[in-house]
Amino acid sequence: MNLFPELKKRYSGDNLNAREAQRLAEFIAFGPVVFQTARILLKWGILDIIRDSDNGMTIDEVAKHTNISIYAAKCLMEAALCIGILFIDPETDRFKISKTGWFLINDPAVRVNIDFNHDVNYEGWFHLEESLKEGKPAGLKHFGDWPTVYEGLSSLPEQVQKSWFGFDHFYSDSSFPEALEIVFKKNKTRSLYDVGGNTGKWALQCVAYDNDVEVTILDLPQQIKLMETNTSGKEGANRIKGYGINLLEASAKFPKNETAPDAIWMSQFLDCFSMEEIVSILSIAKEAMGDNTRIYIMETLWDRQRFEPAAFCLTMTSLYFTAIANGNSKMYNTEDLAECIKKAGLEIEKIYDGLGQGHSIIKVKLINQ
Amino acid sequence: MNLFPELKKRYSGDNLNAREAQRLAEFIAFGPVVFQTARILLKWGILDIIRDSDNGMTIDEVAKHTNISIYAAKCLMEAALCIGILFIDPETDRFKISKTGWFLINDPAVRVNIDFNHDVNYEGWFHLEESLKEGKPAGLKHFGDWPTVYEGLSSLPEQVQKSWFGFDHFYSDSSFPEALEIVFKKNKTRSLYDVGGNTGKWALQCVAYDNDVEVTILDLPQQIKLMETNTSGKEGANRIKGYGINLLEASAKFPKNETAPDAIWMSQFLDCFSMEEIVSILSIAKEAMGDNTRIYIMETLWDRQRFEPAAFCLTMTSLYFTAIANGNSKMYNTEDLAECIKKAGLEIEKIYDGLGQGHSIIKVKLINQ
Repeated sequence: MNLFPELKKRYSGDNLNAREAQRLAEFIAFGPVVFQTARILLKWGILDIIRDSDNGMTIDEVAKHTNISIYAAKCLMEAALCIGILFIDPETDRFKISKTGWFLINDPAVRVNIDFNHDVNYEGWFHLEESLKEGKPAGLKHFGDWPTVYEGLSSLPEQVQKSWFGFDHFYSDSSFPEALEIVFKKNKTRSLYDVGGNTGKWALQCVAYDNDVEVTILDLPQQIKLMETNTSGKEGANRIKGYGINLLEASAKFPKNETAPDAIWMSQFLDCFSMEEIVSILSIAKEAMGDNTRIYIMETLWDRQRFEPAAFCLTMTSLYFTAIANGNSKMYNTEDLAECIKKAGLEIEKIYDGLGQGHSIIKVKLINQ
Repeated sequence: MNLFPELKKRYSGDNLNAREAQRLAEFIAFGPVVFQTARILLKWGILDIIRDSDNGMTIDEVAKHTNISIYAAKCLMEAALCIGILFIDPETDRFKISKTGWFLINDPAVRVNIDFNHDVNYEGWFHLEESLKEGKPAGLKHFGDWPTVYEGLSSLPEQVQKSWFGFDHFYSDSSFPEALEIVFKKNKTRSLYDVGGNTGKWALQCVAYDNDVEVTILDLPQQIKLMETNTSGKEGANRIKGYGINLLEASAKFPKNETAPDAIWMSQFLDCFSMEEIVSILSIAKEAMGDNTRIYIMETLWDRQRFEPAAFCLTMTSLYFTAIANGNSKMYNTEDLAECIKKAGLEIEKIYDGLGQGHSIIKVKLINQ
């Protein structure tokens, strides 16, 4: 396994002493309520008012200022003390927020993850064991009776949708500016197939980036209609075409134009499929490629993260795919996708790292081109 | 707040650097699935087979040996790597268990907590916010429509009961031998009221400890019948009496014999009540006291723990009382119980620490005796 340096440092050795390891084991054993405590402290603004206080706050003061019972304030703040979100001056009984508390308040990634994990995942993860056994998203059933979350997305409760899209967009949007540079400036791309193009968010940026760019969005037929409504009237929309396709059908074929496209774009798309399905999708894509066509696979590869907490978030997010999304996909690492690419008879030309929140782009070509 | 040394060290200062604090914030944000991952790795014996291997195991080997999909093994083991349960040799892709993994397997406290938190608490803690707001155990409702868990205990699913009692007994049983020494050897006790005596487990030990000891168990009338069945025919059972009482009724009175009892015993009992209720219960007890009567309150006081992880477990367990048990009680600290004792017009004579898994006994007397 080829781990980036910060990951190798942390994951290739046992770096806790016995006492700290025992503490971590108990921390894990109470993980669900550690999470809920932190979430409520944030949601009720308790961390904010303690941060904004001149000299910390007592339990009674917090209860009074937030209009909750002393019992509730005591339970939350004592738990927070032991979790490491707050610390105390034992002389004055005044609590202050720790650096960890500060990150809970200020780090947008942490906030997005907390909302996503409470609204979308918490209840479903109770059924993680069943999901792993059956290869089905058993945690989705309390929302509805769909085979995958994608069919149910538009029917999910409003707050659940909000947290789902908040999570999805937070991770993708910040990578688009750098991705445009790579696809259109570092490489010569005029025609692009946007596979799983969804509402056309990326396609609109492509046609706006360069007047000569033509985009064909490939997605499920019902999705293409939504995309057309969404892009209609916007700058360059006349250079965006839709092509209805179900890539899981054996007979599926990419559109065959006079010339092969310069680029085939797949962003946060392959992580929604199993490795077998990815091989099949890449094989279908291969049929539409010419010598100069390149596939650009944009993914958050967990082994290629510069900072270790990002890798942690990604391997944990895999279990959302297991229990909620579809039961058979995950956040892959380079090795997994390289295996799929090889099995599809394709070759990696180059990997661009460090886009946005931690995306990479794998540039793929036909073998020997 | 009077924290024991190890707790003061950890809770009175911010002892993480910014990078570790950010990591901890994300660890908290994924707390529920960190927990489920560890639980499944344990339950499926994956940690065991990796520990027992000569030189670690690869993902494929684990999948084969445990008869699960490679996908499932990969999701679990990659997550475990980032959590710190496993580590990897990147040259060979072989995983080994870390010290944290070792504690998950071998520390009985961790195991008991994991079972309790999955079977009894996980789903209920989703409703922690509501519970704290309303002062009611809102997380209990998916089990049944009882005001507190105690009414529902005998109707809970078998596995839930097993984990509940496993947790309850693990913490109390190990303290009984030392508690007997304190109550009967260090102090002169012949007659004892066992308040909340439940099935008579402690009472049987008392009458077996000394042939002169007489015990009266005070509990709800329906509980007394169960106790009589349970103790019937056992050694010294003729020296155990039952007395039906509901201590939350304003008119409740302890039995008044010719002489006041030497001891009033309350073990893991007061943590099931709010502080207002505790004051009332102690006031009722006070009416039955003579100059030589002592109340012995045995509790796990979170501020008096020798090892910090124990304090962590206790403040987290408070949130079981909030969301599942009754909505208004908790694991108290010395300060809280001292306040109740004072309000009831009583006085602390002595505190014995360090019994079993971390119990203390607060010995209480009438003022000026």
